[in-house]
Amino acid sequence: MRRPLVSLLTDFGFDGPAAIVKAVVLRFAPDAQVVDISHTVSKFAIRDGAFILRGALPWFPIGVHVGVVDPGVGTERLPVALRVARGDVLVGPDNGLLVPAAERLGGIAEARAIENPEFMLPEVSGTFHGRDIFAPTAGRLAAGARFEDVGAAIDPERLVRVAFPAPVVGDGVLETAALYVDSFGNVRLGATPADLGAALGPLEAGAGLVVEIGPPGSGRVERVARVRTFGEVPVGASLLYVDSFGQLALADNQGSFARRLGIERDARVAIRRA
Amino acid sequence: MRRPLVSLLTDFGFDGPAAIVKAVVLRFAPDAQVVDISHTVSKFAIRDGAFILRGALPWFPIGVHVGVVDPGVGTERLPVALRVARGDVLVGPDNGLLVPAAERLGGIAEARAIENPEFMLPEVSGTFHGRDIFAPTAGRLAAGARFEDVGAAIDPERLVRVAFPAPVVGDGVLETAALYVDSFGNVRLGATPADLGAALGPLEAGAGLVVEIGPPGSGRVERVARVRTFGEVPVGASLLYVDSFGQLALADNQGSFARRLGIERDARVAIRRA
Amino acid sequence: MRRPLVSLLTDFGFDGPAAIVKAVVLRFAPDAQVVDISHTVSKFAIRDGAFILRGALPWFPIGVHVGVVDPGVGTERLPVALRVARGDVLVGPDNGLLVPAAERLGGIAEARAIENPEFMLPEVSGTFHGRDIFAPTAGRLAAGARFEDVGAAIDPERLVRVAFPAPVVGDGVLETAALYVDSFGNVRLGATPADLGAALGPLEAGAGLVVEIGPPGSGRVERVARVRTFGEVPVGASLLYVDSFGQLALADNQGSFARRLGIERDARVAIRRA
Repeated sequence: MRRPLVSLLTDFGFDGPAAIVKAVVLRFAPDAQVVDISHTVSKFAIRDGAFILRGALPWFPIGVHVGVVDPGVGTERLPVALRVARGDVLVGPDNGLLVPAAERLGGIAEARAIENPEFMLPEVSGTFHGRDIFAPTAGRLAAGARFEDVGAAIDPERLVRVAFPAPVVGDGVLETAALYVDSFGNVRLGATPADLGAALGPLEAGAGLVVEIGPPGSGRVERVARVRTFGEVPVGASLLYVDSFGQLALADNQGSFARRLGIERDARVAIRRA
Repeated sequence: MRRPLVSLLTDFGFDGPAAIVKAVVLRFAPDAQVVDISHTVSKFAIRDGAFILRGALPWFPIGVHVGVVDPGVGTERLPVALRVARGDVLVGPDNGLLVPAAERLGGIAEARAIENPEFMLPEVSGTFHGRDIFAPTAGRLAAGARFEDVGAAIDPERLVRVAFPAPVVGDGVLETAALYVDSFGNVRLGATPADLGAALGPLEAGAGLVVEIGPPGSGRVERVARVRTFGEVPVGASLLYVDSFGQLALADNQGSFARRLGIERDARVAIRRA
Repeated sequence: MRRPLVSLLTDFGFDGPAAIVKAVVLRFAPDAQVVDISHTVSKFAIRDGAFILRGALPWFPIGVHVGVVDPGVGTERLPVALRVARGDVLVGPDNGLLVPAAERLGGIAEARAIENPEFMLPEVSGTFHGRDIFAPTAGRLAAGARFEDVGAAIDPERLVRVAFPAPVVGDGVLETAALYVDSFGNVRLGATPADLGAALGPLEAGAGLVVEIGPPGSGRVERVARVRTFGEVPVGASLLYVDSFGQLALADNQGSFARRLGIERDARVAIRRA
């Protein structure tokens, strides 16, 4: 019999709470294969967590996936479980963290509030629902409990959403934003190669582009090459590439584009032909 | 048959040694479910490790738990294994790291020095007992070896202890200390809600308090609200709450109380009514 | 039946890609015991990765080991699988990362280019071969696929090598270099106790040595004691010891030798009698 898979994504860091979540999962599902997706999501950064979860889960086996970036813990925000088309269940707070990943996995087939005390620890704290609610729910589901028993069905349309900035396709310019700065300092953008083509027309391999970072007119301008991978430009040179999730991204070959230019989440990025 | 659980806590960081400990455990117990509690305990900070281990283990399934924060490695400090009332075994150096967790798990039923070469690698280095002694001991115990075979029984009363600062309950003031600063920058205190009640009397929900951080009279004074969870105060505001282990803690909602105020381990904290 | 072991070493950090590699391994080998060796290898630092892998793998059970520090991803560098004398298979880019570990495991018995699409995901990106090639190859091999089916045999002699600086044994001086600075700030050197003995003759326990760090004549000079373990010198004092892999290393007892002295990879280190 196959071991059930449970994945974990939190902003809990490495000093104990993430391990406690895992431990509680294992109390309910001792044979689970538990995989840490990330525990270093920027503190309270729901959208960063949503970005990572959406990027990661499509590559995972079907399983139960726990996400906890939860600044509203202990308030009236609902704990939820989302069953998606592919068959996975996502467990976490109703604050937007889970929905982008759920949509990437085929969409939400059924959403439920976690209400059944059998899916919680006997005492529920006001500050650590990862341990007290989400881990037991995930563990029980991984161990075979029925999704229907979690709690009342809720309308998926009423779940909280996080907004990812939409690209603006102009005539000769693509305006987008830094969705996420990854651990390499690559800047992951909120636009696709199709958006770029719509704005600039067909580009030859290696085409030179100018990228303006910051407010229109006053932003810093960088030259980048539109290439397929890092090694196509010299070490230290900049590139615009399609990341491994199909989105545009900016990088320095063997360097940190974001750190060199001081780019943070949500910075405006405008791309034109050189 | 259930897979045995082995947990690991070290100050080894992420560049290899922690993985080597895990690998050696798996050589002796290939089917173990191995859970990392933390490998980023502040280097040589035995009490931080003891704090994390004590907080984490009660949530774990029964297992074999390895703790290695071991500045005395290779000296005369004993390697020990502690069997606790709940049934777990704790393995590590006799330097105070394991005892608080063992007491939280019901107390030490039996303590033994690790002396039997069958519970060690064939060669024992002077600098890496995590690999050479603690991992093989944990692996063998997880695989079913008898606790009695580890080595000679030792008197639990003679184990090295670490001191956690005790709270001082005054008339209208609770004096305590920062036991640990967690990854959120929350300051975990060495006192309980009962201590607070004894010092200040009953407090209404949301009561305003003043917290003096630093030496009496010269410390910095902050106003905090006594609430149940973070979201009960505005973003950026400060709170005193009961952490998920039942101890008092100070935090900024969606911020870092410790970084904002430059608080480090052992800082004096005095709490009064506003 | 024993669960197959798969280990992972990357410079991917903690924000998702390492978990994706693990997830893909598990899609092909759901029962694998997957162990993270490190995901915080300095970005693009092939030799650091090679150093960690070479140090770690001898302590591992026989398995399939994935190494991805891959600045040349998507260029003409080959993806390879190396079967070693001990029975393990190492999987990763042909850039020098894997060879030192392979040699430590008894040498390369057979090397193959990864060419068979059945050992890859259906679509191979230009930027994430860890996910698209190395993880599926490792997963398939762990699940029992034949090594011969990976792709064409290649001459192990033609694999890319990384150079570790060789020690120079002089008359009364050992010249070596900082191979690696570990998470404690200990400086791991490219020389052995035998090299030291050849240069300085027999040393009594605790012998005083002088270590020059930097260019000849202009380097900083430190006094260190040649001891067996940290606790043999006072807290804060410096020592030269044999690390747990049999190489010389410099440390401060309960401090960071590297940070205190600003030592980085490849710094020249000359050791003489005091």
